[in-house]
Amino acid sequence: MSDALTELRRELAQITDLRTAARVLEWDQLVMMPRGGAGTRGDHLATVGRLAHELFVRDEIGELIETAASELDGAGPDTDDACLVDVTRRDWEKARRVPPDLQAEMTKLSSESVEAWATARANDDYASFRPWLDRTLELKRRYVACFPPSDDPYDPLLDDFERGMQTEEVRRVFERLEPALRELVEANGQEEDEPFLTGPYPESVQHDLSVVVARALGAAEEFFRLDSTVHPFCTSFSTQDVRLTTRYAQDDLHASSIFSTMHEAGHGLYEHGGDAALDRTPLATGCSSALHESQSRLWENVIGRSLEFWRWFYPQFRDGFAVLEDVPLETFHRAINRPRPSLIRVDADETTYGLHIILRFGLEQELLFGDLDTKDLPERWNDRMEKLVGIRPPDDRRGCLQDVHWGAGLFGYFPTYQLGNVLSVQIWERLLADVPAAYAQIEEGSFGEIYEWLRDRLYRHGRKFTPTETILPSRAGPIDPEPYLRYLADKNASLAAA
Amino acid sequence: MSDALTELRRELAQITDLRTAARVLEWDQLVMMPRGGAGTRGDHLATVGRLAHELFVRDEIGELIETAASELDGAGPDTDDACLVDVTRRDWEKARRVPPDLQAEMTKLSSESVEAWATARANDDYASFRPWLDRTLELKRRYVACFPPSDDPYDPLLDDFERGMQTEEVRRVFERLEPALRELVEANGQEEDEPFLTGPYPESVQHDLSVVVARALGAAEEFFRLDSTVHPFCTSFSTQDVRLTTRYAQDDLHASSIFSTMHEAGHGLYEHGGDAALDRTPLATGCSSALHESQSRLWENVIGRSLEFWRWFYPQFRDGFAVLEDVPLETFHRAINRPRPSLIRVDADETTYGLHIILRFGLEQELLFGDLDTKDLPERWNDRMEKLVGIRPPDDRRGCLQDVHWGAGLFGYFPTYQLGNVLSVQIWERLLADVPAAYAQIEEGSFGEIYEWLRDRLYRHGRKFTPTETILPSRAGPIDPEPYLRYLADKNASLAAA
Repeated sequence: MSDALTELRRELAQITDLRTAARVLEWDQLVMMPRGGAGTRGDHLATVGRLAHELFVRDEIGELIETAASELDGAGPDTDDACLVDVTRRDWEKARRVPPDLQAEMTKLSSESVEAWATARANDDYASFRPWLDRTLELKRRYVACFPPSDDPYDPLLDDFERGMQTEEVRRVFERLEPALRELVEANGQEEDEPFLTGPYPESVQHDLSVVVARALGAAEEFFRLDSTVHPFCTSFSTQDVRLTTRYAQDDLHASSIFSTMHEAGHGLYEHGGDAALDRTPLATGCSSALHESQSRLWENVIGRSLEFWRWFYPQFRDGFAVLEDVPLETFHRAINRPRPSLIRVDADETTYGLHIILRFGLEQELLFGDLDTKDLPERWNDRMEKLVGIRPPDDRRGCLQDVHWGAGLFGYFPTYQLGNVLSVQIWERLLADVPAAYAQIEEGSFGEIYEWLRDRLYRHGRKFTPTETILPSRAGPIDPEPYLRYLADKNASLAAA
Repeated sequence: MSDALTELRRELAQITDLRTAARVLEWDQLVMMPRGGAGTRGDHLATVGRLAHELFVRDEIGELIETAASELDGAGPDTDDACLVDVTRRDWEKARRVPPDLQAEMTKLSSESVEAWATARANDDYASFRPWLDRTLELKRRYVACFPPSDDPYDPLLDDFERGMQTEEVRRVFERLEPALRELVEANGQEEDEPFLTGPYPESVQHDLSVVVARALGAAEEFFRLDSTVHPFCTSFSTQDVRLTTRYAQDDLHASSIFSTMHEAGHGLYEHGGDAALDRTPLATGCSSALHESQSRLWENVIGRSLEFWRWFYPQFRDGFAVLEDVPLETFHRAINRPRPSLIRVDADETTYGLHIILRFGLEQELLFGDLDTKDLPERWNDRMEKLVGIRPPDDRRGCLQDVHWGAGLFGYFPTYQLGNVLSVQIWERLLADVPAAYAQIEEGSFGEIYEWLRDRLYRHGRKFTPTETILPSRAGPIDPEPYLRYLADKNASLAAA
């Protein structure tokens, strides 16, 4: 290894260690910290984050990148070293384009604006949040202006989460999805709620069953924790130390821990499956938001809501909950899958979910670069919701105030959720071609071969390649909505026939 | 506030945030981390620790200290600002005296040597640990040589834990204690073990009762966590975020969670009682190791092994454990207090404990600066133990290999345990003079006034003053073994009479 590369790796290890320390602080804050800790934890996080940023944007890092690049000495473009130099150069150039003052202003605004959003949502008071949203939009436009002009001003925002993805490509996928999803929801979403959906599902039983499922999927005790929190998430501190979280709603099967555990386990298996040689480098995490979400949704939905999965797991699951005593497997399976028009994105079924995202993708572009004034957001949200899903929010709490993302300055993030859904089925189809016994294995509670296929094709590469390059080895090809639409159509047809 | 002082505070806040982040990483490692995380956690800690050290020892910090000192503008010596400048100058000068290479070598050796110690202890193989001990002693002597000559070469080591304390002062106290403690143990330590000591004490009951006790002493849920770990400790990330840990031996009352919880709660109440204005400064922690230990021992022993405490708590406690059903309060109280000659320091009763420390205090000076070759350590340990406590260790596991401290390079630390015991009673006597109802309050499970007295006299000052200055406001005077010896004599007399 060249001296410059060795030195670059040393510097990046140190910066990655700081970023990891920040993630430990965040996990602790959300999962373990007594309330009293809130007063100083923000300061601890700001210090660690600022030091990591300052160390990274130094001139010396840029020089090391160029020297290391010139000394790669014919290392193939797929080698860890070549990818490290390439990805680091891209991250560094992007970070250097944003003036430190703007960066600091965005960070500060984001934490204050999230507080304002939380209060506004609690009080159903959009007007109090509007000035924060205006200010966030202004800073986001200044952020976009830091980058060279692109085909679409939304591109740099999308690129933060989905390296190299074009807005035009997302638009093409979503335009194909919208009418098809609306049709599926209209045709299948008219049933009354099943009475057993509201439980009770006692927390301790949920917990024990969630641990059983997480371990079965591959989240071994040696490498994974599972804890409870308010808004479940997954984080990791190395490929060998992954933290899953879940929540335990006792009166709503959809919000029970079982699905959120499988969702976060999907994220966690992706992190755990990374090549350990990438630990302590910027390559040691999932490739992109959409690819990460493709894995959480693959394990939660494609596997975890399949009839085969519940053939294996339903006997144990039903034993735990008296309310399910007389509920047949097929009835249960239909209840956790069928469309039901809903106002809240995070509670949406698989079919409706995409419409929630399509709504946000359109509105955030109109807010940033189009004709939509923030004062008109609630009405336009409600009109569009009525058109897409067929129901109108009675208040903003269940309308444009429901998600934290805009409060947190996360513009460009929403579409990756639905791209993840699309990719999950695309990848699953390729897996089925190589592992034809996959469904038979699921029915036996055996997930090892599925994990190994995904690890070999996707997980082990970490962040070495672009999303498109990453899914190529799985031969899934460029993003394509057709497998996903076929999957939803088949599922809805099978539910109707059941 | 002067510009230099503002800038110094800003720099110190950043350095303190990094040190706090390291403590969060350590707590997580010992309490939460899956085993797999061990591979990278050491690197994360090394990076954060090194950056904090590098930021602190810069020339700029020294210049800010001097400018800030000159601009204190008549601020009294007891003000936060004056103390901050004073303590920081002292820390900085001490840190600058140690060459970075030696510092790095000590850090590296310590982590490797702890591993070697753990293996040696597990295998009862002192010979395999001896080379590590030799190397540690050599580095410690080089460390001592970094400081100006003092009356005793042990002074700089002691000073790391007990600012300003002289070895001569410790020797004087221990020389007074040794014959008195030996006499008490000889006169009172001949009974057979009570059968109920070995339980069973089911873990979940211990846990619930430990939470009751911790909350009653003042460790409120808003500011404290209580978790389990192998070797209990306490840490804090601000005055408002304190982490207690305990352990749950089911077959040994002395090693049950109840006493370790009270011990760690004592440490934690000290941290929590610090003035919140000191958070994010180097003053935001206890004053010294001995003062910290004085508080853990005050809550664990002086309060937590008193007859008054158990008059309040024994009814609940006995209800939890079938083995105690027919054990009268007085029998229980005698069992948790009476001397019994023992080989293991951490399991020792209050009376014998000091003899374990006196042994180590002597031996570590002989190892460092005297005639004791490491090859002769086991024999000298065993001879001395026989002389002091009256029993001879049958192996080194229960002899000179029992503690981690020498493996970790912690020379100068042991005496602070016993100084803490001495101070705990000295402070308690002063408290009793101001709060004559203290024992009556304990008997009612009411600890608020005791905590407030301690907070006002000791806790709120954090690390502003030297240990001697800190105990002056409690009017406890310079360290004095007489109250402690009176306390032990009274306790042993009352046990004999019961």
